[in-house]
Amino acid sequence: MFTDTLKSDAARVSAHLDLLIAGIDDLPVTRAMRYAVAGGKGLRGFLVMESARLHDIAETHALWPAGAIEAVHAYSLVHDDLPCMDDDDLRRGQPTVHVRWDEATAVLAGDALQTLGFEMVTDQRCHPDAEVRAELAFSLARAAGARGMVLGQALDIAAESADAPLGLQEITRLQAGKTGALIQWSAEAGARLARADTAPLRHYAQALGLAFQIADDILDVEGDAQKAGKRLQKDAAAGKATFVSLLGLEAARLRAQELVTEACDALSPYGPRARTLREAARFVISRDN
Amino acid sequence: MFTDTLKSDAARVSAHLDLLIAGIDDLPVTRAMRYAVAGGKGLRGFLVMESARLHDIAETHALWPAGAIEAVHAYSLVHDDLPCMDDDDLRRGQPTVHVRWDEATAVLAGDALQTLGFEMVTDQRCHPDAEVRAELAFSLARAAGARGMVLGQALDIAAESADAPLGLQEITRLQAGKTGALIQWSAEAGARLARADTAPLRHYAQALGLAFQIADDILDVEGDAQKAGKRLQKDAAAGKATFVSLLGLEAARLRAQELVTEACDALSPYGPRARTLREAARFVISRDN
Repeated sequence: MFTDTLKSDAARVSAHLDLLIAGIDDLPVTRAMRYAVAGGKGLRGFLVMESARLHDIAETHALWPAGAIEAVHAYSLVHDDLPCMDDDDLRRGQPTVHVRWDEATAVLAGDALQTLGFEMVTDQRCHPDAEVRAELAFSLARAAGARGMVLGQALDIAAESADAPLGLQEITRLQAGKTGALIQWSAEAGARLARADTAPLRHYAQALGLAFQIADDILDVEGDAQKAGKRLQKDAAAGKATFVSLLGLEAARLRAQELVTEACDALSPYGPRARTLREAARFVISRDN
Repeated sequence: MFTDTLKSDAARVSAHLDLLIAGIDDLPVTRAMRYAVAGGKGLRGFLVMESARLHDIAETHALWPAGAIEAVHAYSLVHDDLPCMDDDDLRRGQPTVHVRWDEATAVLAGDALQTLGFEMVTDQRCHPDAEVRAELAFSLARAAGARGMVLGQALDIAAESADAPLGLQEITRLQAGKTGALIQWSAEAGARLARADTAPLRHYAQALGLAFQIADDILDVEGDAQKAGKRLQKDAAAGKATFVSLLGLEAARLRAQELVTEACDALSPYGPRARTLREAARFVISRDN
């Protein structure tokens, strides 16, 4: 079952990350780093682990890029939750880092988590081939930086002060950066580790990432804050355009469904071996958190 | 003359960085990134360029790690200046990023500058050998993260709420992280690009970094804020221990002088070719900004 695989991968990736950070000096900033990487769903780490299994890559190698992407994802959440950004007090059902510690510690912990991501993919234990390590780091930088995730966040901030709400094309571009780029990197990682063609996993991840975001927008409207472990109805309150506000709830649901079909079809070169990744695609639009 | 080399290297490294960032979408965050990398002394970039020249590495390659370290240094300044950190309004004689734009843009611009650093050292144009690119990225992560620069910043924050001011050993460790780690990485970069022994440049940089910090502490006490382009007497106002408060002004000056001699001696394997790096060491303790 996909949910069991997700849970067990998330536990192993978390443990790997926690052990690494525990090896650094014990200070508020390192405690905040360990806190920030704990308790997530671990979807990005799972995508690395599963795409690696698909290419017969040993788990001892896959754990490094899986931990790296969870560290980078955690950094983005810690900074996103800051008072000057989304100003959120709750994340994964727990106080956010700047609430539990303070803003300075949250800034530094986020900074160091990003650095840790690059350290992990360039560690010799990640892969014996330097070509693979350098390529993992370069593609991660492209996905996380001002051409990827940060671009999405910057477009999101710009949208808040724009005269008119964004259109469908603009929202799609924003989300391709904000959530899509790291999801795509995660799914492609297995092919990168094997020096195989990344195209099928890229197409899978592009459809998956968009479906994920549409599901998030639906969850923001009709989800249960308790189960989600974070504040909901934020977008509507901020008057922000979302896939739901632009398409309507029913059409958004249909579009997410189509994207899941697209994602599954993209995996056809892998045949039945990609069963768990197909289950993952169906899961992201049915989750309640 | 060293100061001419510094100026011309700084101009070329800045131009290289600016061109790269200008190739990304024009948004407040990318404008803030370009603003943040402009106008610095460029000491770290110079150390990369000069150590590369010492190993007959082409400037077209050296510009990548030189730009990378200036991007990472700029990220650390942008985040350091935030209200929740040092709360500084002035940097390099100009309004800081969060004053000129806003805090959210400063957080994101800093984040993306760090990412850009890792992108630059893993770009194929940086070096044809993936082993070199992966090693540059791994060592940069070690220098910038919670074992290096962020550790220094975290110790600095912890010192503010400590019961007693730090001692000499603790201040030395703090500064080895906060300013020393990136300076060391910069000086070693030329040897890394040439796959040569990094030990002489490491010893040079360790002495240089400490001398640089002692000079900074002296400047903080008796410098001219106009020339320095930033607020001074901050440490005394905050009751923080510095090399000057611990050693006294005269002993601090002597210690910096000794360290410069040590730094120069470490370069003996390079003979007269290392003349410019020796001048750089003498310069850092005589500068007025």
